[in-house]
Amino acid sequence: MKQLEERIKKDGVFLGKDILKVDSFLNHQIDVALIDEMGKEWARLFEGEKINKILTIEASGIGIACIASRHFGNLPVVFAKKSKTSNIGDDFYTARAYSFTHGNVNDIIVSKKYLGEGDCVLIIDDFLANGEALLALTSICKDAGAKVAGVGIAIEKNYQGGGDKIRSMGIRVESLAKIKRMEGAEIEFI
Amino acid sequence: MKQLEERIKKDGVFLGKDILKVDSFLNHQIDVALIDEMGKEWARLFEGEKINKILTIEASGIGIACIASRHFGNLPVVFAKKSKTSNIGDDFYTARAYSFTHGNVNDIIVSKKYLGEGDCVLIIDDFLANGEALLALTSICKDAGAKVAGVGIAIEKNYQGGGDKIRSMGIRVESLAKIKRMEGAEIEFI
Repeated sequence: MKQLEERIKKDGVFLGKDILKVDSFLNHQIDVALIDEMGKEWARLFEGEKINKILTIEASGIGIACIASRHFGNLPVVFAKKSKTSNIGDDFYTARAYSFTHGNVNDIIVSKKYLGEGDCVLIIDDFLANGEALLALTSICKDAGAKVAGVGIAIEKNYQGGGDKIRSMGIRVESLAKIKRMEGAEIEFI
Repeated sequence: MKQLEERIKKDGVFLGKDILKVDSFLNHQIDVALIDEMGKEWARLFEGEKINKILTIEASGIGIACIASRHFGNLPVVFAKKSKTSNIGDDFYTARAYSFTHGNVNDIIVSKKYLGEGDCVLIIDDFLANGEALLALTSICKDAGAKVAGVGIAIEKNYQGGGDKIRSMGIRVESLAKIKRMEGAEIEFI
């Protein structure tokens, strides 16, 4: 998506190796007109899929997922929570994800009430790098017996390999900006 | 807002004293059509105010704020982050908020890049009870030199007094469901 690539070039901040900050339009301040265009694009890409629910993860995924839902007939959005404890009883699906950004492990949880057999899910998230969070979300879908219709990502750092892992599982991933290479402030898209 | 009150009566879960869970439509699974109606209602209530930015706090506020933004001409949404450390340098405004729900203290942070003099802010959040989070957000606005045009709240538990504190500061608070009293599963709205 040209508009997103241009915005990353213009307002993205490159911090050392592998760190791209998009705080000014996606991760702290949100450009709602931009994420609305992203939602429209995912709706075009996944047209015809019998999606009945959007799944994302707190916090940055929530805004994107809610705005995207407007282009999928206001589908319910479920956001996975990051839990400090995996000891949360039998009412939740859980999966573990290591965060390279924060250098810690999160237990990701989704209530069994809001995901189950018969659900056909579009997973939406802001970043795909090593794929840890996304693998946790797909694992939760599997445990729930829910089908994953596909994954919509804003920014994929393809060279970090997370997308390959997910695609090799037969899951369709549609990333709106695909970064082939980042060096200093130089960025190359696929 | 009748639609929200009815939904709380139908799907809210009452857990002991003072705890109302709205996980099925607001805090874990999100009914996007419902929050869209809420956004429309805040736009009606705050019509004529020269708001240029929406401020909220992660995580549950983000979806509501982004959808509301669509009814305010796609205003930028800034979400305050909950930080584990107050030692985050000079680039952020910070304020401390005690969470009665989680029994812990959060340092709330907003980058100085995204809030400042000349901003006229609508603060949006899902709950208003003791008002701790909201007081922290207004304190950050004050530090930033930003004007608070008003506050849009989904569910206010008026008997817990947070709204009174904020209103006594001369800040307009518009809550879409105002709870006068909760006892067991019995709920009375104002």
